[in-house]
Amino acid sequence: MSVYTVILAGGSGTRFWPLSRAARPKQFLPLASGSPLLVDTIRRVSSGLKRTYVSCGSTHAPMVRKLVKGLPPANLLVEPMARNTAAAIGLAAIHVAKRDASAVLQVLPADHAVRDARRFRAVLAQAAEIARRGALVTLGIRPSRAETGYGYIQLGESLEAGAFRVRAFVEKPDAATAQRFVESGDYLWNAGIFIFRADAILDALQKFLPELWQALNKIAPAIGKPTYATVARRAFLRLPSVSIDYAVMEKADNLAVVPGDFGWSDLGSFSSLPDVRPVDEHGNVVIGRVSALVDCRDCVIFAGRRPLALAGLSGVVVVDAGDVILVVPKQHSQQVREIVEEFKVRRLNRYL
Amino acid sequence: MSVYTVILAGGSGTRFWPLSRAARPKQFLPLASGSPLLVDTIRRVSSGLKRTYVSCGSTHAPMVRKLVKGLPPANLLVEPMARNTAAAIGLAAIHVAKRDASAVLQVLPADHAVRDARRFRAVLAQAAEIARRGALVTLGIRPSRAETGYGYIQLGESLEAGAFRVRAFVEKPDAATAQRFVESGDYLWNAGIFIFRADAILDALQKFLPELWQALNKIAPAIGKPTYATVARRAFLRLPSVSIDYAVMEKADNLAVVPGDFGWSDLGSFSSLPDVRPVDEHGNVVIGRVSALVDCRDCVIFAGRRPLALAGLSGVVVVDAGDVILVVPKQHSQQVREIVEEFKVRRLNRYL
Repeated sequence: MSVYTVILAGGSGTRFWPLSRAARPKQFLPLASGSPLLVDTIRRVSSGLKRTYVSCGSTHAPMVRKLVKGLPPANLLVEPMARNTAAAIGLAAIHVAKRDASAVLQVLPADHAVRDARRFRAVLAQAAEIARRGALVTLGIRPSRAETGYGYIQLGESLEAGAFRVRAFVEKPDAATAQRFVESGDYLWNAGIFIFRADAILDALQKFLPELWQALNKIAPAIGKPTYATVARRAFLRLPSVSIDYAVMEKADNLAVVPGDFGWSDLGSFSSLPDVRPVDEHGNVVIGRVSALVDCRDCVIFAGRRPLALAGLSGVVVVDAGDVILVVPKQHSQQVREIVEEFKVRRLNRYL
Repeated sequence: MSVYTVILAGGSGTRFWPLSRAARPKQFLPLASGSPLLVDTIRRVSSGLKRTYVSCGSTHAPMVRKLVKGLPPANLLVEPMARNTAAAIGLAAIHVAKRDASAVLQVLPADHAVRDARRFRAVLAQAAEIARRGALVTLGIRPSRAETGYGYIQLGESLEAGAFRVRAFVEKPDAATAQRFVESGDYLWNAGIFIFRADAILDALQKFLPELWQALNKIAPAIGKPTYATVARRAFLRLPSVSIDYAVMEKADNLAVVPGDFGWSDLGSFSSLPDVRPVDEHGNVVIGRVSALVDCRDCVIFAGRRPLALAGLSGVVVVDAGDVILVVPKQHSQQVREIVEEFKVRRLNRYL
C-alpha cells in the first residue's frame, strides 16, 4: 500500500499577527519549535519527500520551496486561486491518482502541533489501513477540555481495528454543549486530518461536489504538460469555495473515525502556545530574549531584538515583531482580528 | 523686592524609565506637555532668565544649556557632586546673596507639573511677600486624595496674608493616617517648593547645618573667579548629603506655609500622567501615535516610531522607548525600579 502525504499549506489568517503576515502566515512560523510549523509537519510524518505533496497559494510557493528543500518540483501543488480545502484536496487527489489511483492520501494541515509524533504516526498507520479498504477516514482527537472553538465528531458504532462509524459532525458548540460532549465520552474533536484513497475521495467528490469533480477531470490530463497552469486556472475560476468537511465528510456514508490522543493542538491563537511550548515556573511562555520579567505569570512573550521589560503582568501576550508591537490579554487574543481591521482602516497594510 | 527663581534640576531617578535614562532624567522629558518639565517650570514662573538659576549635576549641564537658551552662564549652578537639596539650595543662596543678600529665592523642583500657572504665580507672590519679612516659607498643597506617597505639613495658627505657622512636618503616612489627614483639613502636601530670603536660609544653615554653612563661606569668595570650580569641589567633597526639609525646615521656628491649590503633581510615576495629560473618553493617556487601541481603558501609552497594537488592556502602562519596550500595570509602576535592577544585574547598563 502506497501512502502519500498531502500537506495543506494554503491557509492565511491573522490570529498570530503581527508574527504572521499576509506574506508569511502561521504555517511558516516557528511557533511550536524552532522550525516553521510546515517543516515540523513534514518531519513528523517522515514519509519521504517523493511521496509528499504540499499545497499552497502562488504567493507562498517560493517560501515552501525554500523551507522544504528536496521537495520534487512536481509535488508542490500551487492552487491557481484559493478555493478552500475541497478544491485543494481534489487537486492533490488527481496528482496522486495519476501515479497510483489506489494510493492512500493522508491529508494534514500544515499549521497544527503534535506533541507525540510516534503515537501520531501509529494512529495514521491505523487510519491508512482502514482507508485502504475504501473508507473516508478522519482522525478524532479525544477532548481534554470543553473547547468551544472546535467542531466535534460524534462516534457511531465500533468498526474493526479501533475505528468507529461517524454518527454526526457537529459545528462548534456552546460551552454547556461542549461540556456535555466531553463528559459523554462520545465526542471527539475534528482536527481536519483526513485519510482516504485517491479514488475514494474522487468518487465522493463526483457524488457530492460534481462541479469540482468536472473541473478536476479537465485538469488531470494536463498534469505535467505546459498547458497545466492555464487549464488549472481556468477550471478553478468558477469553482465554489467550500471545505472538505462541508462538501463531503458531512454527507458521505463510507466514513470512519479513528480516535487518537497524541497531544494535538491547532494553535488557534497566542493563548494556545502554553500547550505546545515549555512554560517557566510561573506559567510564562517566553520566546526570544526578555531582559526583565518581574512578577509576571501566565504570559506569552515573543521578544524581538530589543530588550523587553515586563513587570506585574498576568495572562498577557506581548509580541515585539520588530516593526509592530502587540500587547493583548490572553483571554482577548481573538481581538487581534479587530486590531488588524483597525490597521486596514488606517491604511497600514504594509504591516499586515 | 527682588525675587530670584532657583530651579533644582539635579534629580536622577528611574520611575519613568525607559523614557528617562541616566543621561536624560525626568526633568528633561516632555511629560506634562510637549516641552521638557524643566522648560515648563521656567516658563511657568517667567521671572526672566537673568534672575533664574538652574542647579544641576555636571553631566546634565550641557542639556540644561541646550534646553534653556538665554540662561546667563553664571546662572547655571553646576553642583560639584550630588549632595542633595540642602547643598544645592545653599549654593544657590550664596550666588544670589552675592548680588543681593536680601533677595527672595523661590526654589522650585524642575520635575513637577502645575495645571494652573496663574494661580501658582499668585501663591508664589503671596509667599514671597511673607518671605521678604524673614520667614522660611513653604507651599502646602491642598490634598485631593489620601496620598501615601507624599510628606504632609500640619497647619499651625493663622498668620497674616493667608499664611500659617507650621505645626509639624510629617513623613509619608500610612493609608489610614493619610485618610485622617485629608478629612481633618489641617494637613497639606509638602511639595518641596520653598520661598525665603537668601540671608534667611543662610542664617538657618549656619544654625542647623554648620558644615554646609562653612563650606559655602569658603566657596562664596571664589564666585566668578578661575578658582571657583576647584574650591567648590573641595568644599563639597566632605559635605553630608541631606535634604533641606530634614536639615532646616523640620527644625527652624521661623517657618510659614502658604496653602495653594493650583493643580500640582510631582509626577511620581507613569500612573500620575492622567492628572496632567489629556485622557480620552476611556481614560487612556496616549502620547505619540498608537495605531490600534481596541477596548483599552485607563492605560498610559507612550508610542515610539513603530505602530503599537493594543487590545483589551485595562490600567496598563506601555512604553516604546525605541530601544526598550516596557509593559507594566499602572498600579505596579513602582516595579520599574526592580526592572532597572534586573537590567543592571544583566549588565544592560547601556539601556539605563
